[in-house]
Amino acid sequence: MDFLSSFLMPFLAQLQSPTLGFLIGGIVIAALGSRLQIPDAIYKFIVFMLLIKVGLSGGIAIRNANLAEMLLPALFAVVMGILIVFIGRYTLAKLPNVRTVDAIATAGLFGAVSGSTLAAGITVLEAQGIKYEAWAAALYPFMDIPALVTAIVVASIYTSKREYLSKQRRTTGASPSAASASLSTAGASFSTAGASFSTTGEYPSTAGDYPSTAGDYPSTAGEYRSKQGKRVRIWPIVKESLEGSALSALLLGLALGLLTRPESVFESFYEPLFRGLLSILMLVMGMEAWSRLGELRKVAQWYAVYAVVAPLLHGFIAFGFGMIAHYATGFSPGGVALLAIIAASSSDISGPPTLRAGIPSANPSAYIGASTAIGTPVAIGLGIPLYVGIAQALMGS
Amino acid sequence: MDFLSSFLMPFLAQLQSPTLGFLIGGIVIAALGSRLQIPDAIYKFIVFMLLIKVGLSGGIAIRNANLAEMLLPALFAVVMGILIVFIGRYTLAKLPNVRTVDAIATAGLFGAVSGSTLAAGITVLEAQGIKYEAWAAALYPFMDIPALVTAIVVASIYTSKREYLSKQRRTTGASPSAASASLSTAGASFSTAGASFSTTGEYPSTAGDYPSTAGDYPSTAGEYRSKQGKRVRIWPIVKESLEGSALSALLLGLALGLLTRPESVFESFYEPLFRGLLSILMLVMGMEAWSRLGELRKVAQWYAVYAVVAPLLHGFIAFGFGMIAHYATGFSPGGVALLAIIAASSSDISGPPTLRAGIPSANPSAYIGASTAIGTPVAIGLGIPLYVGIAQALMGS
Amino acid sequence: MDFLSSFLMPFLAQLQSPTLGFLIGGIVIAALGSRLQIPDAIYKFIVFMLLIKVGLSGGIAIRNANLAEMLLPALFAVVMGILIVFIGRYTLAKLPNVRTVDAIATAGLFGAVSGSTLAAGITVLEAQGIKYEAWAAALYPFMDIPALVTAIVVASIYTSKREYLSKQRRTTGASPSAASASLSTAGASFSTAGASFSTTGEYPSTAGDYPSTAGDYPSTAGEYRSKQGKRVRIWPIVKESLEGSALSALLLGLALGLLTRPESVFESFYEPLFRGLLSILMLVMGMEAWSRLGELRKVAQWYAVYAVVAPLLHGFIAFGFGMIAHYATGFSPGGVALLAIIAASSSDISGPPTLRAGIPSANPSAYIGASTAIGTPVAIGLGIPLYVGIAQALMGS
Repeated sequence: MDFLSSFLMPFLAQLQSPTLGFLIGGIVIAALGSRLQIPDAIYKFIVFMLLIKVGLSGGIAIRNANLAEMLLPALFAVVMGILIVFIGRYTLAKLPNVRTVDAIATAGLFGAVSGSTLAAGITVLEAQGIKYEAWAAALYPFMDIPALVTAIVVASIYTSKREYLSKQRRTTGASPSAASASLSTAGASFSTAGASFSTTGEYPSTAGDYPSTAGDYPSTAGEYRSKQGKRVRIWPIVKESLEGSALSALLLGLALGLLTRPESVFESFYEPLFRGLLSILMLVMGMEAWSRLGELRKVAQWYAVYAVVAPLLHGFIAFGFGMIAHYATGFSPGGVALLAIIAASSSDISGPPTLRAGIPSANPSAYIGASTAIGTPVAIGLGIPLYVGIAQALMGS
Repeated sequence: MDFLSSFLMPFLAQLQSPTLGFLIGGIVIAALGSRLQIPDAIYKFIVFMLLIKVGLSGGIAIRNANLAEMLLPALFAVVMGILIVFIGRYTLAKLPNVRTVDAIATAGLFGAVSGSTLAAGITVLEAQGIKYEAWAAALYPFMDIPALVTAIVVASIYTSKREYLSKQRRTTGASPSAASASLSTAGASFSTAGASFSTTGEYPSTAGDYPSTAGDYPSTAGEYRSKQGKRVRIWPIVKESLEGSALSALLLGLALGLLTRPESVFESFYEPLFRGLLSILMLVMGMEAWSRLGELRKVAQWYAVYAVVAPLLHGFIAFGFGMIAHYATGFSPGGVALLAIIAASSSDISGPPTLRAGIPSANPSAYIGASTAIGTPVAIGLGIPLYVGIAQALMGS
Repeated sequence: MDFLSSFLMPFLAQLQSPTLGFLIGGIVIAALGSRLQIPDAIYKFIVFMLLIKVGLSGGIAIRNANLAEMLLPALFAVVMGILIVFIGRYTLAKLPNVRTVDAIATAGLFGAVSGSTLAAGITVLEAQGIKYEAWAAALYPFMDIPALVTAIVVASIYTSKREYLSKQRRTTGASPSAASASLSTAGASFSTAGASFSTTGEYPSTAGDYPSTAGDYPSTAGEYRSKQGKRVRIWPIVKESLEGSALSALLLGLALGLLTRPESVFESFYEPLFRGLLSILMLVMGMEAWSRLGELRKVAQWYAVYAVVAPLLHGFIAFGFGMIAHYATGFSPGGVALLAIIAASSSDISGPPTLRAGIPSANPSAYIGASTAIGTPVAIGLGIPLYVGIAQALMGS
């Protein structure tokens, strides 16, 4: 019962948070046939603002951290961020009827970090008087940003390969149904679909609706399809992902945070506007989610299973890495628990706008639903007490 | 003389307020031929931001109010909001040469509530030591939102009927001049006209300029024009008004304010940006007003009469309702005076963006001019002392 | 060495300021081939917000100043603002290969005032206990706004004359290469080019790319080309510049600041958003600058010479005017030094957005590079100690 309430309380609080409130609001008004629209230019600007803010705060945090001291834990955080995406790629994505891009995006969100889960973990450590390194909280961008970048690049490689294969088949007389499943290349640009909701509720984003996009592409991406062999060249796709507007904004913010002194403009502009702009993005994503809920009917149970198991699994792996750092460099037990909590958390703030822009073909209902409705309550309600308890038991506090 | 100064002082202060200042600024630069433009996407986003904020603050106020205790006064506030629109519909709109949609929009604005008039009323009550229920100020959304919704729906029904009748006549060979008077259906979407001011000062919004719109409509609104009888079916029009972007945003904000906990994002984002965004909207409305001032030349005196008489009349009716609540449930004399002051006030904040988006064919010069330049000074300078005085005299303080 | 460090320290601090940081960030991501875009509607709105804020703060400062007392120094400030533009017009613009519109824009930026240089000057005066009039800081809008207006109008006259002459030659059989060098009329509208950066790095703004614009113009600007003589009529061009969106917004803000009471909305909205929006504009200008850096290869040395000499020269001229006011009306030595410092400073805040919108054909790499990278460090590191020292020596403190 205590177990249940420690899970249910965060769950109920989440439902009333502005983030989820606006998401559900968007779903409801779309369901009721509202003609409300957020202009496309505004949508793109909001995504830009959110991504550059995520990058800036990461860059400022890293600049202010003592890199030499935190080297090993930071390295482990980067490894975790990348690893989580590949775990999702080879578990969730392989389940029956789960769309691969949706699974990659979900794994990216579970690899990214939730600031509120991190804050909850710090509160528990301090309430119990467990010491941890002051810079441990600054580990979050080392996991957050690699996870998002990896997810976008992996999705981009997947869709490019698929497109290439379907083209091969088409030219060799293969079934046209496979050809029509080609998707738009992820990371190409801020999706233009974000704010164009027709009153009929149709949403042209299921696979097969983008033949013209696929056909228009050769001019810029042709390089890696000109090869006649079976392999697709990876680097051009990675480069193209990094040049896309989503990762450009994220990495630009990171670089500005690291190399310049943007604190004044960050604190007076990007930081205060962040939550408000996020609420509007959530509204847009809710309106989109409504039109794509149907896609999830057959696979919702797999997302639920993933969203319960993955946070705990990620936390345990990170805990193992943390113990290596504990024995190698004296990383504190509290720090080890925090690293596990960071890995267990899934982003409900920085992740959605990044993935929405970087993997436009993925269904937000899948990744946000799994993360916000299940993953975060599991991480807070189960993960935090678990890792803090084990850290105390194993290493003394 | 004391009477005159109590009217003139608020009038002069109003002229320098940012709200009216930017409106006049917009009129002046349009008159001088400026090519300044606010992009359409920005205009639509500003309207969205303003409407969702009005809804959110109403919803939060209602959630924090003691509904059981305030039931009867709240009911009377709703009745007043609706009644004021119908009073305007059957008085102002019937005067010679007054355009009906302009009159309905004006009545909607006089039914909506001014926060600053309400604050002025509370200040007077407290200065004179008159008691009132703490929740009395929370009556405002109960009058504000019903008045705006009613105005938009009534305007929508009017234009639909008119369109239907003109179509009937056209098919039976009636005069084409009547046919060309059909207006665009109100509430359909944020007007696209908001930010496209040509340098020549022409503005294509007089009746008769929208034949193509009227012609394009059957696909969505056809249901209520397919009937061959004289009656127009009301419900589809109401539903369409509610699904329009203006009322969608307003009611979405109301629902989010009532059912979730958006306080953090409201206080950090929607509330602080409100007055600034409103100043830009006022600028846009001023530029538009300039091109439509000519329409008012023949009827300005009717708006002036309405703007002086209506606030006092509305206040007296509400005072009567308040007295019923006084004798039935012990509603305090101060509360009765506040209910009358709320009814006498006309919105210069929440109303204009809502009506601009919800009744795009109405002339803002008419409704904002009448409300801000005359209605508000009358309500503050004459209404407040009147109702407070009567409340003291009739019921003791 | 002390001399060098007093120049180098401000230079290095500038490089990390958000203003220059975002500019360099924009250059770098454009160089790396990023597809990041700021939507055009957002770009136009940001420019509007920045310009109206510059106007508002100028207007409020002038309204709160004691005009009678500061009459002579204010007049000299206006004269300096205009004079600086003409100095640049007849020195920098005459150097070999320097584009005239670039030179005019650069002179406009050096005529405009930097708030941070002014603040640095006041700090030095106070540290050394030198008295100055409290209203001396309010002299800045009297130089800032005339300089920007003059630069836009002079650029507009120049391009119109050029267009007219090239047309004359074309009709009399002159070389077509001269005809194709006609530029778009400055000040016509917020440039639409601001946010459309192609991935190929091409930027269609070199002379000769606007023949269709030039051809489309006769309908509005025909009046001053109908004359067959050699002279172009000036007033219509001035009027057209003032009606353009850049000067409209600037002068509207000025008028609203002077005549109404916009303080509440200024302090809650325009002021806090200013630096953040400026950072985004800098990013856009950086992306544009990258594609136009090549234009400067042959002339960079002239901008460097101008940027070192001009601030000191402008400061000395203003110092002379200040001495006249000192002997005529008792203007304090500290005030004289401040007037010189204001004249020596070049705007890195108010100027760039105004010039970008008002002289869209000018190359931002030229004027921002010269001002921010060299002009401001020279004014702060050399100008301030110079004028303060001379003021003390000549007039005693």
